[in-house]
Amino acid sequence: MEKDKALALVKEQLTDHRYQHTLGVVEAAGKLAERYGVDKYKAEMAAIFHDYAKFRPKEEMKEIIQTQGMDERLLSYNAELWHAPVGAYLVQKEAAMEDEDILDAIRYHTSGRPGMSDLEKVIYLADYIEPGRHFPGVDEVRELAKHNLEEALIASIRNTIMFLLKKNQAVFPDTFNTFNDLVLNNRS
Amino acid sequence: MEKDKALALVKEQLTDHRYQHTLGVVEAAGKLAERYGVDKYKAEMAAIFHDYAKFRPKEEMKEIIQTQGMDERLLSYNAELWHAPVGAYLVQKEAAMEDEDILDAIRYHTSGRPGMSDLEKVIYLADYIEPGRHFPGVDEVRELAKHNLEEALIASIRNTIMFLLKKNQAVFPDTFNTFNDLVLNNRS
Repeated sequence: MEKDKALALVKEQLTDHRYQHTLGVVEAAGKLAERYGVDKYKAEMAAIFHDYAKFRPKEEMKEIIQTQGMDERLLSYNAELWHAPVGAYLVQKEAAMEDEDILDAIRYHTSGRPGMSDLEKVIYLADYIEPGRHFPGVDEVRELAKHNLEEALIASIRNTIMFLLKKNQAVFPDTFNTFNDLVLNNRS
Repeated sequence: MEKDKALALVKEQLTDHRYQHTLGVVEAAGKLAERYGVDKYKAEMAAIFHDYAKFRPKEEMKEIIQTQGMDERLLSYNAELWHAPVGAYLVQKEAAMEDEDILDAIRYHTSGRPGMSDLEKVIYLADYIEPGRHFPGVDEVRELAKHNLEEALIASIRNTIMFLLKKNQAVFPDTFNTFNDLVLNNRS
């Protein structure tokens, strides 16, 4: 698929604000892909589509999770998680995306998962550090991302978990397990 | 078993400093048990024995975990976790403690577990707030513990997880799962 065609498909699905965020993620993902030897085309396509389902009604997302055999534990956790796996499903169905690497990068861009591929790591991180992001800790992660993909990813997931803990919100097990997976393997 | 006999058995196993901590946990557990309608005898006995295995050699603890069918994932995480399940095993074996409620309270006093009993909650919390404890956040938990067992437990587990995250240490899944279990059930 051409990048321009993909962007046009996504633009229809998003608010202007969210589309600008998406362009930022594409830029960040392209740079990270070059830096860490990841397929740049796949990184940019995954970035373009990563928030495809962001504005679908909750009821539609819930039904897709239930009828498409997705992890139903998602429904007990923050609904912010739902657009990622639902997005992978819809991008395949509505935009005819068949590349499994790209679909997985969309699917796991919010929760993470143990054993993430480098492409998945790049998309998770690009979503966190794209130029439009401004929150405590993001600059530290941007610095880490210049030198060490693993360390940057660990810091971004740690910040995300701490943000949820401070709000007394449950944390999806895959996210915890991703943190543990990265920390345990980064040490050994 | 008489309380005095139990204390004598435990005193042999601990440093003076750790024994003083144990006496603090017994005091705190007794108060929490009265406040929240938990069997006071069981709470005090579990408190007395909770750190029974604290000073066993790591190699001995590791072997017990491996040979007694315990969760071997423990060996990948902080060794501070090991003395709890190993303690439950040794208290049964060496002190002839057969009360499963008390043994479970010892077993889960460091990791927690989803679906903790009230006795288990009391021991986890007493260990966290006993009068000899001084660390950031403990006074807030002490206040919560005067009114709401669940809220106090959530706060103590949250603090523990954040402490580990800040040190980039992996967090044992049962501890994460306990936090999620408490938060999800406390809300609904």
